[in-house]
Amino acid sequence: MNGGYELLKETGGLPSAPVRRGSRRVVLGVLIASAVLLSSLYAFWPKVQWHEEGVCQTSASASTLEAITSSPQPLKQCAASFPQPAKAPAPVNLWASLTVSETVQIAEWLNQPSRGLNLTSATTATTTDNFIFHIEAWRPSKADALHYLESPNQSDLPERFARVTVQQGGRSTEEGGPAVTDYLVGPLPIGEKTSMRELTEIYHRPDIPFNARGFAIPTELTSLLMTYMPRLAHVTKDLFEGVAMGLENDTLIAGASGPLSFDGSFRRTWVSWRRNVPGPWLHPVNFFQYVDFSGSDERQWKLLKIVYNHQIFDTVEEFLEAYNTGTLRRLPSRPDQTEDTEWTTRHRPKTAPRDLDHLPGPRQVSFAGLRFRVNKPLQYVSWMGWGLYLGFDRDMGMSLWDIRFLGDRIAYEISPQEAMAQYAGNDPMQTSTAWLDRFFGMGSAVRDMIPGYDCPYEAVYLPATTYTSLGSISRERAICVFEHDTARPITRHTGYHDGEFGAVKGYILTVRSISTVGNYDYLVCFDYMFHTDGTIEVRVSASGYLQGGFWEPSQKGYGAAIRDTTMGSLHDHVINFKVDLDVVGTSNSLLYTHTDQEVVEQPWFDEDWGKTVIQQKITREIIETEDKAMLKYPHNFQGGYSFVNQDELNRWDAPRGYAIHPGYSPIVNTIVGSKRLLNNANWARYNLAVSRRKDTEPTSSSMWNMNLPGLPMVDFHKFFDGENITQQDLVAWVNVGMHHLPQAEDAPNTRTNLAASSFFLTPLNYFDADVSMDSLNAILLTSPARPGAPYAFDDYGVKPAHCVPDEIPPFEYSGLSVFGLDGKPAAAASVEELRKAAELYHRIKLEL
Amino acid sequence: MNGGYELLKETGGLPSAPVRRGSRRVVLGVLIASAVLLSSLYAFWPKVQWHEEGVCQTSASASTLEAITSSPQPLKQCAASFPQPAKAPAPVNLWASLTVSETVQIAEWLNQPSRGLNLTSATTATTTDNFIFHIEAWRPSKADALHYLESPNQSDLPERFARVTVQQGGRSTEEGGPAVTDYLVGPLPIGEKTSMRELTEIYHRPDIPFNARGFAIPTELTSLLMTYMPRLAHVTKDLFEGVAMGLENDTLIAGASGPLSFDGSFRRTWVSWRRNVPGPWLHPVNFFQYVDFSGSDERQWKLLKIVYNHQIFDTVEEFLEAYNTGTLRRLPSRPDQTEDTEWTTRHRPKTAPRDLDHLPGPRQVSFAGLRFRVNKPLQYVSWMGWGLYLGFDRDMGMSLWDIRFLGDRIAYEISPQEAMAQYAGNDPMQTSTAWLDRFFGMGSAVRDMIPGYDCPYEAVYLPATTYTSLGSISRERAICVFEHDTARPITRHTGYHDGEFGAVKGYILTVRSISTVGNYDYLVCFDYMFHTDGTIEVRVSASGYLQGGFWEPSQKGYGAAIRDTTMGSLHDHVINFKVDLDVVGTSNSLLYTHTDQEVVEQPWFDEDWGKTVIQQKITREIIETEDKAMLKYPHNFQGGYSFVNQDELNRWDAPRGYAIHPGYSPIVNTIVGSKRLLNNANWARYNLAVSRRKDTEPTSSSMWNMNLPGLPMVDFHKFFDGENITQQDLVAWVNVGMHHLPQAEDAPNTRTNLAASSFFLTPLNYFDADVSMDSLNAILLTSPARPGAPYAFDDYGVKPAHCVPDEIPPFEYSGLSVFGLDGKPAAAASVEELRKAAELYHRIKLEL
Repeated sequence: MNGGYELLKETGGLPSAPVRRGSRRVVLGVLIASAVLLSSLYAFWPKVQWHEEGVCQTSASASTLEAITSSPQPLKQCAASFPQPAKAPAPVNLWASLTVSETVQIAEWLNQPSRGLNLTSATTATTTDNFIFHIEAWRPSKADALHYLESPNQSDLPERFARVTVQQGGRSTEEGGPAVTDYLVGPLPIGEKTSMRELTEIYHRPDIPFNARGFAIPTELTSLLMTYMPRLAHVTKDLFEGVAMGLENDTLIAGASGPLSFDGSFRRTWVSWRRNVPGPWLHPVNFFQYVDFSGSDERQWKLLKIVYNHQIFDTVEEFLEAYNTGTLRRLPSRPDQTEDTEWTTRHRPKTAPRDLDHLPGPRQVSFAGLRFRVNKPLQYVSWMGWGLYLGFDRDMGMSLWDIRFLGDRIAYEISPQEAMAQYAGNDPMQTSTAWLDRFFGMGSAVRDMIPGYDCPYEAVYLPATTYTSLGSISRERAICVFEHDTARPITRHTGYHDGEFGAVKGYILTVRSISTVGNYDYLVCFDYMFHTDGTIEVRVSASGYLQGGFWEPSQKGYGAAIRDTTMGSLHDHVINFKVDLDVVGTSNSLLYTHTDQEVVEQPWFDEDWGKTVIQQKITREIIETEDKAMLKYPHNFQGGYSFVNQDELNRWDAPRGYAIHPGYSPIVNTIVGSKRLLNNANWARYNLAVSRRKDTEPTSSSMWNMNLPGLPMVDFHKFFDGENITQQDLVAWVNVGMHHLPQAEDAPNTRTNLAASSFFLTPLNYFDADVSMDSLNAILLTSPARPGAPYAFDDYGVKPAHCVPDEIPPFEYSGLSVFGLDGKPAAAASVEELRKAAELYHRIKLEL
Repeated sequence: MNGGYELLKETGGLPSAPVRRGSRRVVLGVLIASAVLLSSLYAFWPKVQWHEEGVCQTSASASTLEAITSSPQPLKQCAASFPQPAKAPAPVNLWASLTVSETVQIAEWLNQPSRGLNLTSATTATTTDNFIFHIEAWRPSKADALHYLESPNQSDLPERFARVTVQQGGRSTEEGGPAVTDYLVGPLPIGEKTSMRELTEIYHRPDIPFNARGFAIPTELTSLLMTYMPRLAHVTKDLFEGVAMGLENDTLIAGASGPLSFDGSFRRTWVSWRRNVPGPWLHPVNFFQYVDFSGSDERQWKLLKIVYNHQIFDTVEEFLEAYNTGTLRRLPSRPDQTEDTEWTTRHRPKTAPRDLDHLPGPRQVSFAGLRFRVNKPLQYVSWMGWGLYLGFDRDMGMSLWDIRFLGDRIAYEISPQEAMAQYAGNDPMQTSTAWLDRFFGMGSAVRDMIPGYDCPYEAVYLPATTYTSLGSISRERAICVFEHDTARPITRHTGYHDGEFGAVKGYILTVRSISTVGNYDYLVCFDYMFHTDGTIEVRVSASGYLQGGFWEPSQKGYGAAIRDTTMGSLHDHVINFKVDLDVVGTSNSLLYTHTDQEVVEQPWFDEDWGKTVIQQKITREIIETEDKAMLKYPHNFQGGYSFVNQDELNRWDAPRGYAIHPGYSPIVNTIVGSKRLLNNANWARYNLAVSRRKDTEPTSSSMWNMNLPGLPMVDFHKFFDGENITQQDLVAWVNVGMHHLPQAEDAPNTRTNLAASSFFLTPLNYFDADVSMDSLNAILLTSPARPGAPYAFDDYGVKPAHCVPDEIPPFEYSGLSVFGLDGKPAAAASVEELRKAAELYHRIKLEL
């Protein structure tokens, strides 16, 4: 047992099954497994006896211990590096994902003829079939949840529901034609009382257009592309030294632009061709096709345009004619870049190592044992007065629930909502791209962490499972939790009077999850960092590959060359968070504090300085209605925004509050009014916006929003309809983001130190004084009575432990566990299958 | 030998001497000692043999080792946790401080009658005497330094000079009356060629007014206050339960406001009374006097006004009459607060400990040995391709010089310049206060770090010495250096193609120094963090006591109540840094990059989306003259500023550059035009400003600037006289800062997590690709050929070390070493003396 870094193969991991072949199992990179999963959860703690609040019993590594303790002055083995059990406020995680067996039961129930859904199994479904796209837990209403949490009796437990998304390519014209429908199914478990109804109250349009549908069939575009790419093979081979003919050794692959539609009336994309090499996103060849794949009938799909080197052709014939007659303006050939693909890999360059880099860097160790507690089955974490539940979903991954500090709820929910990336350029792909990553599923894009590299060695990992139409996938290291020494005291003073001199250490607890969205531009690291003073720091860091355009001098205004014929394309990222703060209950108001310059005359002034003084002054005002609550940080950050409870005062008569404080890169989207983000991501216009909290407004976006900029499922601006927001249950929709002006140093991957954005939620007169002062990991110094003598000190009995730490087990990484639609463990997916599932529309490889 | 955390008492620390009594030795809290110091520096490495580039030989803790290794499977002791020796580019630190013996020699030379300075020893001097205020190294011209560094021959070593400041209270009216004069003395060592001349070329006015003089005589105001405070004793005892009569058990102390003058024509201050308890800055009693102490003749000094509870009296008699006749409007008494002083201490509150806080938190250990190198005698540090020299001065403390990365100079100098704090309020003290902390000496305000609390246990400490008029003080732990794991990879990607999947660890090297300025509002932690990609992060974090005003409801616009009768007063901090970047040499230009929205028509668009697109576009322009280079970050941070060398292109034809990238809290001063900061801190109006680098413009401020807002010694705006700045040697004057709107959680001390501001210096097309990719502390994963099999990986041979780390020695803190003006070790100072030296005008205790 080695704490966070457990060897997965020792913990009930699934044996690998023989390989099956086929073009659809691809997305078997995707599943859970109810009973199987639950048991594997428990299997994670093989040598630990859980006690409700007690101490962990462990059979420590006896041999090592003995080896060390056999001498006269034995140095003891350190406390085992696994977390002690946590006691959650309630024994049920109300926001837990469905188990795989639950999804299987629900699917079986939906498949019953009496449901009238006429479902086909997604494993065999085509575009013209009806099949289940997604099954996920539907979270309880806040009122029900709070009622239960008030005194967690089983009888008050909110009923459990699932949200089911059905893709209805087979719906007849009489029924309205192909569509997508969301249903609410429950109560769970499936039983006599279980029923279903359409879920519409959270959307701003009644229908989910079929043309806006999510990614379900990886080969969706293959048949269309195969109608013309083989005919172009000799041309692409000549121009790009590559072909895309649906053969094993094809050397060109495609990426597709988004959004695919404006309002659901069509489904079109720009297909951009790249070399099929490592980091293909940085190997574009300046060759594009605009294709229409509207509706469910593949026979109607068509090629609309071909663009090569800024020359536009309406048909394959026109393009071939220009090529054959030699009128095609060819790009200069760049043999170097065609051959050199090493620069888009993470292989170490063949330079001399840096001085002393052959040694491992410093490693943090909790010598006296981990100080945070984890309840893995419940997905509950506690540390230093903090406690929170974790949730996980397909669209956005990890979310935080019922976050309490020193016994009081600070926030009901903190969760990412949507991630926007809008590009600019001088080619069809870049000018057309405005990603909303919820479409791709940032939760299903979560990858297993690399222990010791993504999180410190002593981090503790938590699993997550995501459902897809072809099965479920379970990742054991989807989330990591660790305590970190910031190496900077949180408070500190040097003084000489009794009690003035001392320091409190600056420890934080980090809860982290990492998504790799479609493998293109960015890997997103979501960090929630809890401080001992009651502050929560939310930080997003990005790395990964740029979305690269074809470099030519006319692209100068849209990025920077990072290779002979590759550029990084200019874009903005904005990521939206739902922050449902509850400051001493749910009756909160939005306080706007700002400072301005004033000129005041004071009677005590003399002529020497003049009778007036120029100084600043604070104005505090309550913003009373939603329409005034779409906000930017004040000029020069002079003041800011906070939630206060006007009815709850601290000891000094200030309303108790929590401030939303900007951190790194507090930016908003540069572009306003683009048709490609017209109404589907208006949250990105503001640093934050505050609305009444409603169960019917659970999120600022939807997975279909990307493809419906003109008429989105969730139209953020509709949240802001002038309602009063004083002493109400409020939600702050807070953004982080980054203007990414690419540069050579973005190759091969963007760096997380600069590609970072953050905000803080921090007490504002919430307490009567700084509560981090109660820390025992602190020191108080007292000046000596005799000059020159050492200082007396009080370290509250907390001293560094001296012991032998656990050995770090050998490195091991094995990916994921896959479950079929039947809930049973499925064959492990091949690399190519995993890749397809991960890269979706960003790497389309033709297949016959 | 325990690496960074050496026990000072083992390393040649000075024995404590018997206590002497006297009111002036106070500032003996202040000194160096040449030979003594140098030998103590070497004494720091008792068991280490230095080799130029070799490995450290050490006599490791044999007994522990043996104890552990006596069993069959011995676990080895870890590598010793002291740094290996560093090889600097040149064997001389051109920016080193003077040794104590050098200052003694210089003082002796200045005292010779032939110098004509008519000096008195500062230990006995009064305001009407001439005495040496300060002696400090004068740094060589950049041309001389670069010439020497080009090929470091002894013959090219720049001559060494000292800057000497003489306070001339004894200068006759015929000579122009009392003044302060700066001299340049050299070459050093003192010899036949040594001469002196006035140093004026770095100032914008010819004289240093006597009324603007620095703090030299702690009791300067005592005689004036003693003319009236004893007469008010019965009143203050009645009103505040306190007295200030110059007696041992006085219960009131004073603080003085600044600036003391507008242009040097007067020297006046508001004296604010506080209770003499721990954290007196938070115990104001709402009682003020305005006093004039212009000129050198104490007999002319006078009381101008008394203000109590907004009532103004011109004389003591008027005030007493109002008191005696009962017409004085008294403040309501608040007995609770008078008695309760615990809240302004750092004593742990008597609350239950947090869960598991009795355990020490995680500690970072370099199990395989430290990876950074330090040359303590030379004050040179290197790590992972970085190398830099350290300097130290009275005014601003630590500075960084000749900073190189991968062999090339990135910056010639990075150093703090000035720290502004401007207050607002409704009382005479707050409305009058605009601190510029260079006046107080942020270098002399550096305090010894608390090992394990201010820096990690394995940090390595470097000493610093500061001169004062009464002697020198040496602090062995003035600077700390440590490597830190940010617990976040610097780059990372998940991919499936060969070479796409891996992570590079995010280590940084931190160089830190902490000043406690005057013990009032803030303790300032200066962090310079070096990243493996070539990025330097400069972060300032603040903690410490607020400057508190007397709380009453009319103060609402100027802060917040933090106790019954105490408020935190609204203020802005802005701290200026000199950033002398040299991007591939000294010929650099200022690039302004910004993005704007454009509407463009593209021929490939269809009717579906319309023929036009709204997107962003980058504009890059060179700012050509200084007058256009006083800058704020662009709106919404759309773009930014960088230094580029237009004549040096990277492989992709972009000019190589370094960007100045905002971090936390990128703010400027809220107030423009205040008389109290009229011309002496105009750098605070901008996020950054760029000027030609000149030896005559070494700094943006001076220690006298605080007291000369109308006509400052250094008028920053005069740097910007329209000169061309293309392909010139440039300096960026970059600000960090914080709008401090106080809140209850600022008591007892402000928290460093929110009170933080930073900027980054980061490569911008400086390289051809990300150089952090060469790290060996990295991993590359390869997807398995057989589905479900573990991933293959390459960790470049760097694995976590498993060994027994050094034990942390018992905690020990002993303060500082004191040297007299004769250069000999002096008696240790008493707490009260240390306190007076530290708190200067912020805590004036009357003495008879």
